[in-house]
Amino acid sequence: MNVKMPGVTLVADWDPKPGFKLGAKDIEGRQTYLGSQVWRHPRLEIREYDIPTPGPEQVLLEVKACGICGSDVHMAQSDTSGYIYYPGLTGFPSILGHEFSGVVVEAGKKAINKRTNQPFKGGEPVTSEEMLWCGQCKPCADGQPNHCERLDEVGFNVNGAYTKYILVPSRTVWSLEPLRNRYKDSDIFIAGSLVEPTAVAYNAVIERGGGIRPGDRVVILGGGPVGIAACAILKRAGASKVIISETQEDRARMAIKLGADYHINPMKEDFATRVLEITDGMGADMFMEATGLPEVVYPGIERVIWEGRTINSTVVVTARADAKMPVMGEVLQVRRSRIIGAQGHSGHGNFPRVIECMAAGMDMTPMSTKKISLTELPENIIKLQTDRTECKITYLAQ
Amino acid sequence: MNVKMPGVTLVADWDPKPGFKLGAKDIEGRQTYLGSQVWRHPRLEIREYDIPTPGPEQVLLEVKACGICGSDVHMAQSDTSGYIYYPGLTGFPSILGHEFSGVVVEAGKKAINKRTNQPFKGGEPVTSEEMLWCGQCKPCADGQPNHCERLDEVGFNVNGAYTKYILVPSRTVWSLEPLRNRYKDSDIFIAGSLVEPTAVAYNAVIERGGGIRPGDRVVILGGGPVGIAACAILKRAGASKVIISETQEDRARMAIKLGADYHINPMKEDFATRVLEITDGMGADMFMEATGLPEVVYPGIERVIWEGRTINSTVVVTARADAKMPVMGEVLQVRRSRIIGAQGHSGHGNFPRVIECMAAGMDMTPMSTKKISLTELPENIIKLQTDRTECKITYLAQ
Amino acid sequence: MNVKMPGVTLVADWDPKPGFKLGAKDIEGRQTYLGSQVWRHPRLEIREYDIPTPGPEQVLLEVKACGICGSDVHMAQSDTSGYIYYPGLTGFPSILGHEFSGVVVEAGKKAINKRTNQPFKGGEPVTSEEMLWCGQCKPCADGQPNHCERLDEVGFNVNGAYTKYILVPSRTVWSLEPLRNRYKDSDIFIAGSLVEPTAVAYNAVIERGGGIRPGDRVVILGGGPVGIAACAILKRAGASKVIISETQEDRARMAIKLGADYHINPMKEDFATRVLEITDGMGADMFMEATGLPEVVYPGIERVIWEGRTINSTVVVTARADAKMPVMGEVLQVRRSRIIGAQGHSGHGNFPRVIECMAAGMDMTPMSTKKISLTELPENIIKLQTDRTECKITYLAQ
Amino acid sequence: MNVKMPGVTLVADWDPKPGFKLGAKDIEGRQTYLGSQVWRHPRLEIREYDIPTPGPEQVLLEVKACGICGSDVHMAQSDTSGYIYYPGLTGFPSILGHEFSGVVVEAGKKAINKRTNQPFKGGEPVTSEEMLWCGQCKPCADGQPNHCERLDEVGFNVNGAYTKYILVPSRTVWSLEPLRNRYKDSDIFIAGSLVEPTAVAYNAVIERGGGIRPGDRVVILGGGPVGIAACAILKRAGASKVIISETQEDRARMAIKLGADYHINPMKEDFATRVLEITDGMGADMFMEATGLPEVVYPGIERVIWEGRTINSTVVVTARADAKMPVMGEVLQVRRSRIIGAQGHSGHGNFPRVIECMAAGMDMTPMSTKKISLTELPENIIKLQTDRTECKITYLAQ
Repeated sequence: MNVKMPGVTLVADWDPKPGFKLGAKDIEGRQTYLGSQVWRHPRLEIREYDIPTPGPEQVLLEVKACGICGSDVHMAQSDTSGYIYYPGLTGFPSILGHEFSGVVVEAGKKAINKRTNQPFKGGEPVTSEEMLWCGQCKPCADGQPNHCERLDEVGFNVNGAYTKYILVPSRTVWSLEPLRNRYKDSDIFIAGSLVEPTAVAYNAVIERGGGIRPGDRVVILGGGPVGIAACAILKRAGASKVIISETQEDRARMAIKLGADYHINPMKEDFATRVLEITDGMGADMFMEATGLPEVVYPGIERVIWEGRTINSTVVVTARADAKMPVMGEVLQVRRSRIIGAQGHSGHGNFPRVIECMAAGMDMTPMSTKKISLTELPENIIKLQTDRTECKITYLAQ
Repeated sequence: MNVKMPGVTLVADWDPKPGFKLGAKDIEGRQTYLGSQVWRHPRLEIREYDIPTPGPEQVLLEVKACGICGSDVHMAQSDTSGYIYYPGLTGFPSILGHEFSGVVVEAGKKAINKRTNQPFKGGEPVTSEEMLWCGQCKPCADGQPNHCERLDEVGFNVNGAYTKYILVPSRTVWSLEPLRNRYKDSDIFIAGSLVEPTAVAYNAVIERGGGIRPGDRVVILGGGPVGIAACAILKRAGASKVIISETQEDRARMAIKLGADYHINPMKEDFATRVLEITDGMGADMFMEATGLPEVVYPGIERVIWEGRTINSTVVVTARADAKMPVMGEVLQVRRSRIIGAQGHSGHGNFPRVIECMAAGMDMTPMSTKKISLTELPENIIKLQTDRTECKITYLAQ
Repeated sequence: MNVKMPGVTLVADWDPKPGFKLGAKDIEGRQTYLGSQVWRHPRLEIREYDIPTPGPEQVLLEVKACGICGSDVHMAQSDTSGYIYYPGLTGFPSILGHEFSGVVVEAGKKAINKRTNQPFKGGEPVTSEEMLWCGQCKPCADGQPNHCERLDEVGFNVNGAYTKYILVPSRTVWSLEPLRNRYKDSDIFIAGSLVEPTAVAYNAVIERGGGIRPGDRVVILGGGPVGIAACAILKRAGASKVIISETQEDRARMAIKLGADYHINPMKEDFATRVLEITDGMGADMFMEATGLPEVVYPGIERVIWEGRTINSTVVVTARADAKMPVMGEVLQVRRSRIIGAQGHSGHGNFPRVIECMAAGMDMTPMSTKKISLTELPENIIKLQTDRTECKITYLAQ
Repeated sequence: MNVKMPGVTLVADWDPKPGFKLGAKDIEGRQTYLGSQVWRHPRLEIREYDIPTPGPEQVLLEVKACGICGSDVHMAQSDTSGYIYYPGLTGFPSILGHEFSGVVVEAGKKAINKRTNQPFKGGEPVTSEEMLWCGQCKPCADGQPNHCERLDEVGFNVNGAYTKYILVPSRTVWSLEPLRNRYKDSDIFIAGSLVEPTAVAYNAVIERGGGIRPGDRVVILGGGPVGIAACAILKRAGASKVIISETQEDRARMAIKLGADYHINPMKEDFATRVLEITDGMGADMFMEATGLPEVVYPGIERVIWEGRTINSTVVVTARADAKMPVMGEVLQVRRSRIIGAQGHSGHGNFPRVIECMAAGMDMTPMSTKKISLTELPENIIKLQTDRTECKITYLAQ
C-alpha cells in the first residue's frame, strides 16, 4: 500500500486574538484548546496523504462511511473577523471527519478486538470513539475518559475519516459485527457512522442523566441529531411520553419517526403550557437541553418544573453554548430537581450498548438523509453553514 | 345500600402445629404471619356480607375485575396433614381477592385521589395496592412501605375483592383514568386488575434490581404472571435480548407475546449453554428468579455469570421458596455480581408508572386468558391447584 | 390537666397584596402558602391555651427545649410596608417553635413508637419532624414526604412548641432514647432540639446531594446553623477537607469547632483562589450553598469547578432565596458537575440516622449558645432580626 | 546502573494436575490463572537481577517498603501433594511483593504523574496498584479495571517489590506527596505500603458495597488486614457502630485501635445474638465477609438480617473461598437485602481517596507490627504459614 489517498483537510492560520495565552496543553502554531481564539481564515482542501501504518496497539481501517457533524461545519466557518466558530480542541491542518465506520485492514499485534478479546483480524466491520482518551491521566484512571486531561480527538487534532484509510488505537474501536443480522451492504456502515452521535445522546440521558424508569415522561429541546437520538433512546428506555420541542418541521418529523410522541413548536405555541397540557399537568421527569440556546429555553423548562407535579426532574444540558442560564434555586428545591452537564460518548459501556440497541432494532439510519462522495464533502460542509434541510449528510466511500 | 353482597370466603381452623408460638403481630384464633403453621382444613364458602361504609380516609369501590393469584390457590390448598400451603400473613375467615379494579362508589372526606389531589368522586376507575402499609412504623416513615411492620393485606387478613363492594384506604388507591384512551368497556378493568402483579415485577426489576440500560441482556426464569410481566417491562426498558426460561410451552408463548425474544426450555436443553449461545458468550446483565425453585436454577445462573463476559450482573430473587441457594462467593467477586431480594409492589412510584406504561401501550390483558363470574371462583381456584393451563383467570363482575 | 398553658403566638393581619389570588391550598383569612404576600403587621403575643388531648394516632408532649429558627424571626419581622418577611406556608394566629424536644405525656392507642413498634408510653424522650406530611398524597405515597402536597407545619400553620405541651402525630415523632448514654439531664433535650436543623443539613448533603466518599473535599458556603451542621455531618462522612466560607468570625469558629478544617472569609480573600490553594488545585467534590445569596456566591463556586481538577462536583442549594444564579452550562459539561436543590428533613431515614450520629458522638450542643425561658422568647426573636451574635438560642423549659 | 540487585523469588515446578487444561490466557510452562492446579514444590530463593530500564510509559522505583500479604504466604505454601495453596494468576519464577511504596528514580517521557498531569520526576514518593489492568479490553474500556480480561499482577506473574528496584507502568502509580505533612522519614513509606490493602477494603465497602450513610451500623467478620482496614474506613465514613467479629484477641485489639467500637469473639459467644444486643435489635446496614469461611459465617449473618429490624442490609463478600454459602432467598426478600461480591482495588478513585484519607488522619501504620530486611523475607513468609501473631510484616529497605 504505497499509493496516496486524498483527505478533506481543514487548513487555517495560527493568529491568536489579542490577550490569548498558550494553555498548558496548547502547542504553539499547531494545537489549542480554544479554537475560536486562535484559528483564522479556515479553508477546506483535498490534500494527498500517505496511507499510514499501524503501531502495535493500533488498527488501520478502510473508511466506509462518515457523517458530517455540526462541529465540522463550525471549524470551516468563520465570523466577520475571520476566526473560526468552533471553540474547542483543534490542531490544523487536519483531515476532518469523526462519525465514521469502516473495515479493519491491518492491526498491530497488541490491538485487541474487545468483541473477541483477541487481536483484530482483517475484515471486521467497526466504528470508533472520536475521543482518544489517554488511559494514563487521573480522570482516565478513575474511569472518566470523557474528561481525559490529555485528550486527542479524531478529526479535530488528529487526522479524521474524510479519506480512504484511518489509524485509530484499538482501545477506542468497537465491532459492528452484531449489526450484520439486521443490516445489509452499506447500511451496516451508515448505521455504524451513527453510533458516535447516538452515543453522545446515550451518555447524556442514560449515563449522566441517570436514565429514566419505564413510564416516565421526557422532553427533548432541539431536534438536531443528538436530540433526535435522545428521542429514540428514551422511547426505547420506556418513556411513556417523549416530547420534542423544535422550530423546524422536518426535524420534528424525523424526531417523531425515530421515537418522539409529541411535537411542540415553541415559535407557534407556548412551550411550558403545551408540556403541561400533554402531560396532564405532571410535567416531565427528564429534560434535555439540545438547542444551544439555554438562556432562551431554560425559563420554559423552569416553569414546567415549577408548575408540573413531577418531583425529581433532571435537566441534562448537552448542547454547548456560551451563555448563562438564569437558574432559580428555589425551583430546584421545591420540586427536588437538578441540572446536570453532559459531555462526550466514551466509557461507561456507552458504545457497546448503543450497538446492541441498534442490533435489536433501534434504527437510526433514517437520520442519514443524504449520501455523498469524498469530493462532495467540502461543498456540503459549506452548505450546512446556512442550510439546515438535511438531518445528517453522510460521506459514503465507493 | 342495605342489601347484602356475596363474598368468596376462605374459612379454616386455627390449629397451630406443635411448637408454634404466637408471634408479636399474631392474634390468637384470628391472625398469624405464618399461615401454613396454623391454619387447617381450608374451604371456600360464598358467604353473605353487609355492604361496608367508608371512614373519612376510605373509599368504597364497586369491584369490576379481580384476578386469581397463586397465593389464593395456596390458601385454599392443604398438604396431607390438612395445613394450608400458603406460609404468610393470613386472618380467616376472609374474603379473598387482591388483584382488583373497580369504580369509586363513595369516599370519605379525607380520601384523597392522588391523580387530582382532591377528594375522590364517584365514577373514578381505580385499582389498589393489596399491601395496606400503615404509614406510621419505621419502615413506612423511611419510605419502605413494602416492609411495613404493621402490614394488613387485602384478601389475606382483611376482606378482599371476590365480592361486589370493597373498602380500601385512599392512600393505596390509584386512578385508572389514564387507561381510558387505550381501553374500552370492561378492558380497562381487566388491565386494571393486572396492575398489581405487574407492579410486583416492576418493583423487582426496576426499583429493587436497579433497572437496566437500553441494550442490556436479561434472563427471566419462570413464566408465571410475574415472570411474564417482567419480560414486558424489561423489553420496554430497552433490553436488547429478553430470554424466558420456562418448561411449559403455552407460558413461554405468552412471555414471547408480551415481550420475550427467546425461549429456553430447561427440561429439553441446557439452560446455561443456551443463554451463552443466544448472547454470543456475553451472559446477562439481569436474571430474575421467578420459578420458586431457586436451589434448582441457581447453579445454572451461576454458570452463566461465571462463563459469560458480562460484568455487574444482578440476580433478582422474586419467587418465595423455602430453600437455600448454594452461592459461590467467588463468582460474585470475579464477575462483580450481586443477588438481591425483592418483595411487594408498593411505594417508589411503582403503581403510577405501571399505569403510565399501560397507557402508553404496554398491554398486559392477553395474560387474562379466562373470565369467570363470582360463583365460578371457588371451583376455578381449586382447579388451579392442579391445572396450570390458564395464565390468569379473572373474575369479571357483571 | 385542665389548667391553661401560655404559648408564644404569632398574630398578624390577613391583608393580601394587590393581585394576590387564593391558592389551591390556601384558606381565606387563615392560611396561605405565600406568607409574605398576605400577612401584615406581625406581633408576638403570649396567649393562654387549653392543654390539648391526643387523638388515636397522636402524642402529647411536654416541651423540654425548642430552638429559635431564622424562619421564626422572619415571621415576626416585617418590611417597610408591614408585610412579613417569611414567604412560605403560614396560618396565623399560631404558636411558633418547631425545633423541639420533649417527653411523652400521653399517647393515643394507635400512636406507635417507631423505636419499639409498640404504642408510645409516657416518659419517652422524643423529638419530631416539623413537617407534618400527610401520608396520603402522591409524593407521600411515592416516598417523598418533603414534597407532600397537603403539608402542615408545626409552628407555622399548626401550633408549635413555644409553650408547655404540644400535640404531634406519632408518625413524625422519633425517640431520643439512644442519646441517654451520652447526655445527662437537660442536655439530651438540647441535643434533641438540634435534630431538626441537623436533619435539614443531613437531607441536603447525604440524601439529596448523594453523600461523599471518604477522602472527598467539600466546601460549605454560609455558617448558619444548617451550614455548620453540614460541616459536622460531612466531616463525619469522611471528608478529607471541610472548608467553611463565612464572613462572620464567631460563626466560622463554631463551624471549625464542629467539624470544619479551614475557614475562608470571602470579604477578606478571594473565595475561589483560596479553595484552589487549600485543595492543591483540586477544587471540591461537594459545595453547599447555605448563604441565601446564590447569585453572589455562584460565580465563585463556578470558578472553582472550572479551574479545579475534580470531576463530578455536586452543588447543593439549600438556602432559600428569591434570586437567580447565572449558570454556565459548559462548566457543568466540561467538569461533569451538577446542581441539586434540597428541601426538608423528613423521610429517607434522616431523623433516625442523625440521632444515631449524635449517640455516637456527633455533638451539636455547642451550637446552642444561649438558653432562655418562655417569657424571654418574644424579645429574643425580635433581637435576632438585627443581632447575629448567637448561633442558636434555645428555649429551655423549667 | 549496571550493578545487580537481589530479589526474593518464588520458584516452582510446572506440573499440572490430571485433567488440567490450559486456559485462554495461560502460557505453557510459564503462567496460569489457576495456580493451585499447576504449580508444585514452591521455594523462595534470593536471586540476582539486572536493574530494569523504564519504557516510555513506565516508571522505575526504588523500593522503600513492602508488606507481606496472605497471598505471598499461600504461593510459598504447599499441600500434602506439593501443590501451592494460592489458586489464582501466577507466573513463576517471579519476584514476589505487591504492597509496596518507593521513590521515583527514572521515568519514561510519557510516564505521567497523575498528581501533576506532567511526566514523573525523580524523588516523588509513590505507591502503585498491583493490578496492571491493560486499558484495552472491554472491561477496562467500560471503566472496570478490576475485571480486566488481560490482567497482569505485580508480584504474581510480573516481578514484584521484594527487591531494590521495580518497574511499573505510570498509569497504576499514585503519588504519596499528600502524606508528607503527616508522616516523617520512613513512615511515609510504611503508610504508602498499606495503601493497597486499604484500597481493597475501600473498593469493597465504598465502591462495591455502595458505602453507608453516617449513623449506619456495620459488622466486619474477620480481622485480617483487609477486615481491619474496613473498620477504619467505615468508622471514618460515619458508622455509628463498627463491630468486629474475630476469634483472635490481638487482631481484635488492632481492629478496635483502628476504628472498631465492639468486638465479638464468635468462639466464645453467639455472633448473631451479640450483634442484635449491641444494636438494640436493629442488626446492621452492612456486613463484610472477610474470614474466608463464608459457609461457616453466613448463617449467622442471615440470622441477624432476619431478626434485626434493619431494612436494606448489604453483605459484601471480600475474602476468597472455595465454598458455597447457603442463602435463603426469602431473607433477602423480606429484609430487602443483598449480597455483593468485591474484588480488587483499582479504578473508581479508590487509590487517591485512600491516600487523601491517610493524609487527613486515617493512620493505618499501627497495622505494620514488624519490620524486616530483604534477607529476612523468606523465613518470615514461611513463618506466617503457621504463626498469625503479627498483623502485617513489612519489608523496609535500608
